[in-house]
Amino acid sequence: MDNSLNFTVTILGNSAAIPTKTNHLSSQLLTYNGIGYLIDCGEGTQMQLVRYNIKFGIIKHVFISHLHGDHFFGLVGLISTFHLLGRDKPLNIYSPAPLKSIIDIQLNVTHTDLSYELIFHELQEDCLLKILETDNMQAYSFPLVHRVPTWGFKFIQRAKQKRIKKSFVEEYKPSVSNILKIKEGHDYEDTNGKIIPNSDITIPPPKPLSYAYCSDTKFDKSIIEYVKNSTLLYHEATFENSMQQRANDKFHSTARDAAVIAKEANVSQLLLGHFSARIKDLDKLKKEASEIFKPSFISEEGKDYKISH
Amino acid sequence: MDNSLNFTVTILGNSAAIPTKTNHLSSQLLTYNGIGYLIDCGEGTQMQLVRYNIKFGIIKHVFISHLHGDHFFGLVGLISTFHLLGRDKPLNIYSPAPLKSIIDIQLNVTHTDLSYELIFHELQEDCLLKILETDNMQAYSFPLVHRVPTWGFKFIQRAKQKRIKKSFVEEYKPSVSNILKIKEGHDYEDTNGKIIPNSDITIPPPKPLSYAYCSDTKFDKSIIEYVKNSTLLYHEATFENSMQQRANDKFHSTARDAAVIAKEANVSQLLLGHFSARIKDLDKLKKEASEIFKPSFISEEGKDYKISH
Repeated sequence: MDNSLNFTVTILGNSAAIPTKTNHLSSQLLTYNGIGYLIDCGEGTQMQLVRYNIKFGIIKHVFISHLHGDHFFGLVGLISTFHLLGRDKPLNIYSPAPLKSIIDIQLNVTHTDLSYELIFHELQEDCLLKILETDNMQAYSFPLVHRVPTWGFKFIQRAKQKRIKKSFVEEYKPSVSNILKIKEGHDYEDTNGKIIPNSDITIPPPKPLSYAYCSDTKFDKSIIEYVKNSTLLYHEATFENSMQQRANDKFHSTARDAAVIAKEANVSQLLLGHFSARIKDLDKLKKEASEIFKPSFISEEGKDYKISH
Repeated sequence: MDNSLNFTVTILGNSAAIPTKTNHLSSQLLTYNGIGYLIDCGEGTQMQLVRYNIKFGIIKHVFISHLHGDHFFGLVGLISTFHLLGRDKPLNIYSPAPLKSIIDIQLNVTHTDLSYELIFHELQEDCLLKILETDNMQAYSFPLVHRVPTWGFKFIQRAKQKRIKKSFVEEYKPSVSNILKIKEGHDYEDTNGKIIPNSDITIPPPKPLSYAYCSDTKFDKSIIEYVKNSTLLYHEATFENSMQQRANDKFHSTARDAAVIAKEANVSQLLLGHFSARIKDLDKLKKEASEIFKPSFISEEGKDYKISH
């Protein structure tokens, strides 16, 4: 199925730190309206894209949450492959600043004069910050709590315009300029000077869909404010509840931690990921999260999750 | 089967430049007497090691032929995973010099204070050079002909000692010190002063087995001297014969090129690899090589090739 017009996230890797026989390192592709937003890029991401028949050309933006290898060691290979395939469209990279020097030294040493432009955008603020705005998408970064500077990301569809009620159009036959004004929120004045309130003649647009990504992070209630009301929240659940102390020590979360954030942030659904290779029974994580926040799910590699109400 | 005591090469990746759905980037593991010698380390090598149940701990030496990404982008991830698993034994890396700075910057940025020692050995000479000698193995580097400085590698079992004929031992019952002398090549003098020539009482050791690796390289007859008489030669065959011009332009080889080297070098067997993603029919490459050098084979990922007479 071609999901490129839907608002969808495809999980490419959900293993923490080291890969296993079945699970790959952190990466996922958010897709909306034909544009791909790659979130994290662990080693092997390009192979996972090939495996799941994802066209490289749709990827316009790459978001790197932090500079631990399992979240970015695949980026230089992906950049190189784009080059070998003759890409000409720019690639935007939103990441902690040192990533640029890491990529640059490798492109220099391999004598790679890229066929396209890399545009680096440094993640730096300690608050919710808009880092990208297109015709139909806004992306924000916000701070997580990990052993190194780490950011989460929130993607929000741009609000659609109001729709005008069919009955009004049929009765008043408004001009094109009036239609545009009504869509912007203006009231309508008919030929007799009668004012019809905007709310009487329009249907509010659907609530914009949104996706939030939190990996890697310690449990911290400051995150709730950043991800509140998201349609879908991906939150790391590196460990089971019984490993809470280990989670705290390693600046990671348990399934319960993720569920508390999801519940208090009033998100619609929670997707768990970034599983420690020590976790043999992922159903247990789902059960632990669901006890606190029912619509909790285990992310599965290769699966497309449609973000919808 | 545990191959670790045999002299074996396991192919981990044999795709050129970019990975495909079925083929991974260049890497292979030579194993002898329980020690692993990793040759090239394209992105995804650590996943391939996991996939084929290869114990990370056996790898003591890594050989990087040249600094094109498809031959080394997987090394930093492998080094990091060794660290996360608590490795304590040193890892020797034989590579072009700039690799050290590429690894160092990434370990620095990711705040990785390795649990073990990395020992870099710079490849630099333009001749056959011994770069490693252990109790049972010698490794040599030699220059290939590619767009960037590139080395091939040759691994030779250290010659075993002569064996003493059983009939001699039974008849003369030589002392331990005499046995050692005979194994070193000395003649034997019996109690009556009679000299028995060494050649009459010993069996010559088997010819040492050897493995040579040539990837990436243009066809160049200078290579023949370096790989002559190898038991098994792995030689790149990026392109079919019909793509000879492209091979020349890109400093790569065709199946015929590889076979000519194998034949003139008098090797026992030829293993073809580093296949362009453009090649859809690998049997054609085998056929093209076999027309010149019959014992030519297509390398298969995950397959162990025993190096034997």
